[in-house]
Amino acid sequence: MLAPWRSPLSSAIYRNRSKPFSRYFQLATVTPEGHPANRTVVFRGFLDDQSDVLKAITDLRSTKIQDIEHHPVGEVCWYFTKTREQFRIAANLQLVTVAETDPTLQQARQTTWHNLSDSARSQFAWPDPAKPVAEPTAFDVSPPNADTPLDNFCLLLLTPHKIDHLQLRGEPQLRCLYTWQSDRTWKTQQVNP
Amino acid sequence: MLAPWRSPLSSAIYRNRSKPFSRYFQLATVTPEGHPANRTVVFRGFLDDQSDVLKAITDLRSTKIQDIEHHPVGEVCWYFTKTREQFRIAANLQLVTVAETDPTLQQARQTTWHNLSDSARSQFAWPDPAKPVAEPTAFDVSPPNADTPLDNFCLLLLTPHKIDHLQLRGEPQLRCLYTWQSDRTWKTQQVNP
Repeated sequence: MLAPWRSPLSSAIYRNRSKPFSRYFQLATVTPEGHPANRTVVFRGFLDDQSDVLKAITDLRSTKIQDIEHHPVGEVCWYFTKTREQFRIAANLQLVTVAETDPTLQQARQTTWHNLSDSARSQFAWPDPAKPVAEPTAFDVSPPNADTPLDNFCLLLLTPHKIDHLQLRGEPQLRCLYTWQSDRTWKTQQVNP
Repeated sequence: MLAPWRSPLSSAIYRNRSKPFSRYFQLATVTPEGHPANRTVVFRGFLDDQSDVLKAITDLRSTKIQDIEHHPVGEVCWYFTKTREQFRIAANLQLVTVAETDPTLQQARQTTWHNLSDSARSQFAWPDPAKPVAEPTAFDVSPPNADTPLDNFCLLLLTPHKIDHLQLRGEPQLRCLYTWQSDRTWKTQQVNP
């Protein structure tokens, strides 16, 4: 059975679909030094239709890898501009790398790679991010093979354990908390905005 | 002299001004338990025309107060949808509360309150956030006096120390890091996206 927050989240994604940027969210992590880090990430769908696990992708060369390895918890802030609603999603984070031995997860990594655009795949063949700027020609790469993910391509899985859904359009505004409990059920609470 | 990132940031704010939501950014903090937290916040301008300090507001009843008191560092992620550029802004955080004794800061708190809309000021008179939902009539409050901030109104000052500016529209994409150094100058580096 899907989590109770899946329906309002799927509805928000659907109702904001005219804006490509509505599939971007901000992912906060904690650095090994204990500071917050925050960046925009593209939502790549759910792990499967019957799953509550969100997918994103990242590059093994990205600094967020160290954050996640050190502290595998994140908080997504996903603001939908058209419907004026926000989902804050606290989630456990899991990296699926080239070294992943679970066949289902490795398959998910390959399928996610396959479904990317050539342009998205090419970024994994670009020069090292955040290093002194390379010659522009270094970015003219041939699109990598769609069937074989590059070694630095990682699937990032986000398994939510707390969701805070705020709808600014309500009068008064509506806010609902969904909390994953130790009995493995979701608790739903309407709270003040 | 303004910081070198002020010009590109002010330009982004200006060029995206047709979208009211381009004044919203996501602020990540670290909770007292060491987990990331992330929420959308409204940009309330700079402390003054000649300042690099960003302003936001918050409510003393918000859980982010504990985060900031425990670890006064945040990272803003500010994505501009029209010009397709992102600013990641690591900043020291400072709360200016009703108890602030610095007259300049207390004046900034009062001015910021004065410049809010009635609707924004009214939210500080609403029932306690995140508590079990109150009767809708509890949200029908008279707008508070514009000259006297309510005691739970806080000004939040963000003093940046590192900015990561990414422009997705470039070919290749452009990325520039600005780092505040111990000699109290900004270092500017063009890096790979």
